[in-house]
Amino acid sequence: MLSKLPDVGTTIFTVMSQLALEHQAINLGQGFPDFPMSSELTNLVNKAMQDGHNQYVHMNGLPLLTQRIAAKIEKLYHTAVDAASQVTVTPGGTYAIYTALTTILHAGDEVIVFEPAYDSYIPNIEINGAKAIRISLQFPAYNIPWHEVRQQVSPRTKAIIINSPHNPTGAVLTAADMQELQAIAEAHDLYIISDEVYEHLVFDGIEHQSILRYPALLQRAFVCFSFGKTYHCTGWKIGYCVSAPALMKEFRKVHQFNCFSCNAPVQYALAEYLLNEDAYLQLGSQMQQKRDYLRTLMAATPFELIPSHGSYFECYSYAAISNESDKDFVMRLTKEKGVVAIPLSAFYKEATDNKVVRFCFAKKAETLKTAVEKLMH
Amino acid sequence: MLSKLPDVGTTIFTVMSQLALEHQAINLGQGFPDFPMSSELTNLVNKAMQDGHNQYVHMNGLPLLTQRIAAKIEKLYHTAVDAASQVTVTPGGTYAIYTALTTILHAGDEVIVFEPAYDSYIPNIEINGAKAIRISLQFPAYNIPWHEVRQQVSPRTKAIIINSPHNPTGAVLTAADMQELQAIAEAHDLYIISDEVYEHLVFDGIEHQSILRYPALLQRAFVCFSFGKTYHCTGWKIGYCVSAPALMKEFRKVHQFNCFSCNAPVQYALAEYLLNEDAYLQLGSQMQQKRDYLRTLMAATPFELIPSHGSYFECYSYAAISNESDKDFVMRLTKEKGVVAIPLSAFYKEATDNKVVRFCFAKKAETLKTAVEKLMH
Ligand SMILES: CSCCC(=O)C(=O)O
Ligand SMILES: CSCCC(=O)C(=O)O
Repeated sequence: MLSKLPDVGTTIFTVMSQLALEHQAINLGQGFPDFPMSSELTNLVNKAMQDGHNQYVHMNGLPLLTQRIAAKIEKLYHTAVDAASQVTVTPGGTYAIYTALTTILHAGDEVIVFEPAYDSYIPNIEINGAKAIRISLQFPAYNIPWHEVRQQVSPRTKAIIINSPHNPTGAVLTAADMQELQAIAEAHDLYIISDEVYEHLVFDGIEHQSILRYPALLQRAFVCFSFGKTYHCTGWKIGYCVSAPALMKEFRKVHQFNCFSCNAPVQYALAEYLLNEDAYLQLGSQMQQKRDYLRTLMAATPFELIPSHGSYFECYSYAAISNESDKDFVMRLTKEKGVVAIPLSAFYKEATDNKVVRFCFAKKAETLKTAVEKLMH
Repeated sequence: MLSKLPDVGTTIFTVMSQLALEHQAINLGQGFPDFPMSSELTNLVNKAMQDGHNQYVHMNGLPLLTQRIAAKIEKLYHTAVDAASQVTVTPGGTYAIYTALTTILHAGDEVIVFEPAYDSYIPNIEINGAKAIRISLQFPAYNIPWHEVRQQVSPRTKAIIINSPHNPTGAVLTAADMQELQAIAEAHDLYIISDEVYEHLVFDGIEHQSILRYPALLQRAFVCFSFGKTYHCTGWKIGYCVSAPALMKEFRKVHQFNCFSCNAPVQYALAEYLLNEDAYLQLGSQMQQKRDYLRTLMAATPFELIPSHGSYFECYSYAAISNESDKDFVMRLTKEKGVVAIPLSAFYKEATDNKVVRFCFAKKAETLKTAVEKLMH
């Protein structure tokens, strides 16, 4: 068979989670929490099923849910979005990104992608016959080199993908970054795909620079969110996309013939839950405590911190420990130490090995403690 | 914006369901039941959530679920499939079809599609830069004209899409059809996309001709199923795809960067439910009763029956009632009679109007009774 994605193997997240199971290792690899989610929210799903909400809801999402999402956006980002024409519920953030890229890309288009990059972006581009223009974030702070973006942008450039808080590094964009983005996007008439699945997981008093704060940018953007990451239920596979009406109209043409619509009871539950929910206001500080706890533990190891300011993740250099490739290093950590991490090179199309690994700290304190004890053994 | 799907509007199913809500009409349009699903199954979902199964499961599907699917296939169709390499859980049958077509199609490829066709097929083909070769099923029995298939197949033909039981007509393929299919697919090395979401809803003592009965065909096929249609929970958006290992490997490359994985609690519940479940053996006769009840009621109207042998649907000609286009006719039924149906022309890319409408009979007896009373008013 002539492969649509000849360069692609199994995603690193699945590979490492499988290895964790096989070696009974502590899984600080794939980004998911090991603590319980809200029982209020699971009870609401059960209630929705009992109430008989088990048939198709509207392909754009349950209207009550998209309205509550719009209300939350207004409260949080002070931007009015129209639920009916600008918000679509999706089976997760990854799907929203795929569908957005499929909506806009034609053969021969180019898309600017910053590496390290979440591993779906480039295959999403390539499957549409388009080309990823890869630009490396500046190691070790992982800032965007805007001068290089200006050099690389061309008449073929159709879009730029941003991701803040950033997976895998936890870097967050600043207001100055958003100005650079706006100048380039407007000058070259680019679409923006903004992966904001960690919108609430921002630390150190920093304010998340959502595209939704910038109405001029939203005109050209698809902004992708994840309820799974916000409510600690990554296995529910539910998120949403926000865009301008003209763009969302095209997004929905693709969506309606991709998965068509999303899980009904979960949407009824989220609509109810969002009504009185402001726990997300505390999410950042709760998750920061976990990051800080991991930092304290890791300070006693030879790993060198590369500070994260958001997301589920923090990166560490192991250059002081070993000269191995990062892939060999995580294999050895798995087998010898019983701890799973993700090698940063997995986020680059052409191997770039800065001797850095990513740990997920969205875990119970005891999990983090045991993991670091194992690392030190 | 340069549209990827310039010809596409909002899917007829959403349009008609919205009209049903606006006019408070009885919705015999979009295919979903109005009777309750199994409470055993909803309880199992609740149990899975309470047990903490709320994080990512394997991207191919929960292993226990794919194993139980394989066991069911063996029992039902006497074919051994390997769960690990041949079964992938998807967020619904529509998504499985989209992902399969995206896996195999390159720009310039052609795909044979029979019309009337479920409305996602042709956009799924076109979004991949391929071309649909449309062949009309023979009105009014809606058989496949195999001689025409042999005429239309060309070196550019990459695949053929079959759908039995057929939506919208309820036509079912015979063993003779499968022989024709096999001869053509093998002679021209075609992939087969087989939409079998109504596999259990087959009537009149007919045996469903699943591709899964034909190991030689399965070598070149993606077979798409829906738990939503089988267990009367269309809103859960869960299904699966079965293929040969080499094909499934490529399907999973696309799937892992489309939605990545599916709802976890639902998968735990289905795995448990499938263990002791053989209610699907009765499904056909239960649904046949509903079809027969609708038939009895409709016999008192001037609508002329076009017999269905499977699915949720039966078609009727209204030629004896009106000369209107089928779209105008269903609009008038909605507004004047308070009953929603689907016009068959919506299943053709270029309007073909045989004065036929589709009714969904997966409804409570009282719903069907009231609907037909309204039609006669
Ligand atoms: C979609 S699987 C991976 C989850 C995640 O975002 C990550 O681990 O980076
Ligand atoms: C995916 S929406 C439509 C459901 C269905 O299969 C139909 O009504 O034909």
